Amino acid sequence: MVTLVGGGPGADGLITVDGLLALQRADVVVADRLGPLDLLAQLGPHVEIVDAAKNPRGSAMPQDKINDLLIEHALAGREVVRFKGGDPFVFGRGHEELEACAAAGVPTRVVPGVSSAFAGPAAIGVPVTHRGATHGVTVVSGHLPPDHPNSLVDWSAVARSGTTIVVLMGVATLPAIADVLRAGGLPATTPAAVVADAGGRAQREARGTLATIAGTAADAGIAPPAIAVIGAVAALSTPRPAEGGASA
Amino acid sequence: MVTLVGGGPGADGLITVDGLLALQRADVVVADRLGPLDLLAQLGPHVEIVDAAKNPRGSAMPQDKINDLLIEHALAGREVVRFKGGDPFVFGRGHEELEACAAAGVPTRVVPGVSSAFAGPAAIGVPVTHRGATHGVTVVSGHLPPDHPNSLVDWSAVARSGTTIVVLMGVATLPAIADVLRAGGLPATTPAAVVADAGGRAQREARGTLATIAGTAADAGIAPPAIAVIGAVAALSTPRPAEGGASA
Repeated sequence: MVTLVGGGPGADGLITVDGLLALQRADVVVADRLGPLDLLAQLGPHVEIVDAAKNPRGSAMPQDKINDLLIEHALAGREVVRFKGGDPFVFGRGHEELEACAAAGVPTRVVPGVSSAFAGPAAIGVPVTHRGATHGVTVVSGHLPPDHPNSLVDWSAVARSGTTIVVLMGVATLPAIADVLRAGGLPATTPAAVVADAGGRAQREARGTLATIAGTAADAGIAPPAIAVIGAVAALSTPRPAEGGASA
Repeated sequence: MVTLVGGGPGADGLITVDGLLALQRADVVVADRLGPLDLLAQLGPHVEIVDAAKNPRGSAMPQDKINDLLIEHALAGREVVRFKGGDPFVFGRGHEELEACAAAGVPTRVVPGVSSAFAGPAAIGVPVTHRGATHGVTVVSGHLPPDHPNSLVDWSAVARSGTTIVVLMGVATLPAIADVLRAGGLPATTPAAVVADAGGRAQREARGTLATIAGTAADAGIAPPAIAVIGAVAALSTPRPAEGGASA
């Protein structure tokens, strides 16, 4: 059996109870470079941890190699956990891995996780929806530049959707994404924020508008993994208690 | 202190570890009608559970009454958990409650949860993103009909965005939403699926296309809470292991 576990955005306590139980029962854990990796150090000495973020040549392990590993261990009778940051079905290639396992006769199970797309903004006090401000949120990958021939996103339509826009994997492409959203009709004054290492020890944030955020993020030294959030909600932050309260 | 806890989509094990710890430390829990409510029965007898989904007249408790309750208990020195289904910052009015608490001098904390917007589709084997099929997902509330004057969503733009579309709170409005997405250019043959009580004992699903899903869901007796997912990914399902495996 292979269990896909979404580990959440990175903090140990944001894994689900079922996800933690699956980890604790595993014989083999195949992990990526994101998620609550500290938890892996707490597993028993008999548990084999495979770092799928690295291969002997220093690059990331190719997807078919990961699939083969999962299948090989499962067919050998081991309890396998495929451990991912965030949620396995949100840019996680989770379904591809299930398909490969099933084709090899290996049963699978999915334990969803807290998605960084929502928990990232939350870590800086930004809710992705807010009554009266927005009735939706669009989560897009910024991995490909907007003008890339393989891009499947109509950024101009996203700009006009009226939803909050959350961009994952978009540090390098943020200037181009901000431009294409402005060209699509989103006002230059639209609030925007970026958070890096959300919820982690090295969390950093940058705030600005659609016009300024790419520069502000660069000035703040924002580096991957980072999440950008664009829309009225990006002007919100964690409310600080009034001293003595409203009745004082 | 008031802690907003996202309980996840409903299964007991899909709450986060931090969320469960917060519940176990609470003196008062103010709960909604969704989320893993079975967990509340496992709390100690000293814990006061307030059902915010009901008030003496049978309707839902008004938001300002909920805010007042949270503040009153917190100012009396009690550990208060505000317990919500899914994630508190995704259509949860979470930030509004934080603002009300802060204005009254009450410190707050947020524990994100697994959002039903992603875990709902996952419960029927549908990933909201899939390599080669989509690079994003738009989560929208179907609470207001598309032609409602207060609607903040440009459904025509959503139709053209190229992202998977997930509609929450849209059972009643699904026929109108399907129509407006088709009018916006999304092909009638686009796969669509609906899941009700995702992950719960009463889980039901309906499958079809943008043209048929509203009828199929009605025929299947789909009732709230339900989640619709529209896009190429809605044709996917949990892969079943091949007998004997690929090598047989």
